[in-house]
Amino acid sequence: MTDVAAMLSAYPAKRPQVDENMLVICIQEALNCAQACTSCADACSADPSAAHLARCGGAALNCADMATAVARVLSRSTPYEPSVAAAALRALDEACRACYEECRKHALDMEACQICGEACRRCGQACQRLLRDGEP
Amino acid sequence: MTDVAAMLSAYPAKRPQVDENMLVICIQEALNCAQACTSCADACSADPSAAHLARCGGAALNCADMATAVARVLSRSTPYEPSVAAAALRALDEACRACYEECRKHALDMEACQICGEACRRCGQACQRLLRDGEP
Amino acid sequence: MTDVAAMLSAYPAKRPQVDENMLVICIQEALNCAQACTSCADACSADPSAAHLARCGGAALNCADMATAVARVLSRSTPYEPSVAAAALRALDEACRACYEECRKHALDMEACQICGEACRRCGQACQRLLRDGEP
Amino acid sequence: MTDVAAMLSAYPAKRPQVDENMLVICIQEALNCAQACTSCADACSADPSAAHLARCGGAALNCADMATAVARVLSRSTPYEPSVAAAALRALDEACRACYEECRKHALDMEACQICGEACRRCGQACQRLLRDGEP
Repeated sequence: MTDVAAMLSAYPAKRPQVDENMLVICIQEALNCAQACTSCADACSADPSAAHLARCGGAALNCADMATAVARVLSRSTPYEPSVAAAALRALDEACRACYEECRKHALDMEACQICGEACRRCGQACQRLLRDGEP
Repeated sequence: MTDVAAMLSAYPAKRPQVDENMLVICIQEALNCAQACTSCADACSADPSAAHLARCGGAALNCADMATAVARVLSRSTPYEPSVAAAALRALDEACRACYEECRKHALDMEACQICGEACRRCGQACQRLLRDGEP
Repeated sequence: MTDVAAMLSAYPAKRPQVDENMLVICIQEALNCAQACTSCADACSADPSAAHLARCGGAALNCADMATAVARVLSRSTPYEPSVAAAALRALDEACRACYEECRKHALDMEACQICGEACRRCGQACQRLLRDGEP
Repeated sequence: MTDVAAMLSAYPAKRPQVDENMLVICIQEALNCAQACTSCADACSADPSAAHLARCGGAALNCADMATAVARVLSRSTPYEPSVAAAALRALDEACRACYEECRKHALDMEACQICGEACRRCGQACQRLLRDGEP
C-alpha cells in the first residue's frame, strides 16, 4: 500500500549488509507507530480523567518523535553508518517499550491505548529484529 | 495495513463536520509522501550529477517536513480548529506541487523521482479534496 | 547565541528578495516556539485538572509541529519558492494564533502557558512580518 | 535569549535527579544543531561538486532529525524515564559524531560545514555530559 519498498529498491543502496525486507518492515512500522502514538496522546489528553493518563500521553509523544526521526534515518542510504543506525534503533526500541508499558495499563478501558500499545510492540520488535538479524 | 482508521475511530471525534474517510486517506498519503520525499532527496543527493538535482532534493525535503507536520496535526481531534487545519492543508498542497514539478523533470531518468512525484500528486489531491469536500 | 545568522550568511542565498534579518528572526522564533509549545503541552497534561487544559495542550502540539517544519523550510535556500514559503508561514501563523488564544485563557494560573503564549505571539508576528515586508 | 530555561523551571519537574542547567544547555544545543544541520545539508546539495558532499549532507539530515526528536523528548518532564532519555542521548551523540566527522573533511572549503561541525561537536558534548554527570 505504501511506496516504502519501491522507494528503497529504486535507489542502488549503499548498505548491502542490511536485509532490505526487514528494513522496509521497520520503516513501515515506525511510520505507523508515529501516527498511532500521536493519536493516542490526543485521546489520552481528552479523557475526563486525563491526569492519570498524562504519563501515557507523554510516553506516546516521545515515541512518536523517535519513530518519526528513525523512519527518516532508515530511509537514507547515502550516509548509512551502522553505529548511527544501531543507536537510533535502540533509542526507538526503548521509547516503544516505555509507551507499550503505559498503554497496556489502560488497554482495557481505552481502545486507543490498546491499538497504540500493539503498534509500539510491533515497532519495537521490528527494531530488535533489524538490530539482531539485519546485519549478518 | 496501517492503524490510521482504527485510531481515528477509537476516539470520539470533536470534528463531526469532517469526512472521516477523506481524513484517513489524507493522513495515510501524507505519511507515505513524507517517506517517499525523504528517500527521493537521498537518491537525488547521491546521483553523480547531483548539482542539477539539488532543487529537486530540497523541494522533497520541504515536502517531507510539511507532510510529517500535517499528518500529526490531522491526527489530533482535541484541538481541532478548521482555520488551522485548512492553512496546514494548503501549505502541504503547495509543498507537494513544488516537489511534483521538480520530480517530473527527472522522472524518466530517476525511478525515485518518478515514484516520489506520484506520491506528491496523490497527497496534494487528498489535501485539496479534504479542503473542498471534507467540511460540508 | 545560536548559529542561525552565521549559517544563513555562510551559504550564498538563492532568495535575494528576502530580508535576511527578518528571516533569521523568524527561524529563531520558530525554534523557540517549538520548544516552548512542547514544554507547555507537557505541563498542561500533568496538571491535576488536565481535562480542561486538553485543548490548550493539543493546540501547543500542533503549533510545535508546524514551527519545527517551517523553521526547516525557511532554513533551505536551494529549493526556495515564494509560494511554498508563504503558505508555510500562513500555516504557522494560524497555529500560533490558536495556541496563543488557548494559552492566554490559563496564563494567570499556569506560568508555562504565560511564557508559551508570549513565544507564540512573537513567532506569529515574525511570520506576518516576513510575509508582509520580507519580499519587497 | 530562548525561553528554554524559563519553560523548564515553570513546570515542577518529575526528574529531580537531572541537573537542570545541563538539561537546558543540551536542549539549546540540540535545537541549534538541528538548524545548522538543516542549513548545512542545503548548502552541500547546492555545491557544484555536490556528489562528493552527498555523504556529508545525508549525515547532517540524520543529525537534524535526531536532534529535533531529542530536544522534544528532553523537554518533557511528565513521562521522564532515565532509560529512554539515555538511549535518545546516545543516538544523538552518534549522529553528531558522524556529522562532525564528515563536516570537518570539508571545513576548510565550506564555511557551512565548519559552523555545522562545531555545532555538532558542542551538541555531542552536551549529550555526553548529561549522560555522565546529569544523573548522579
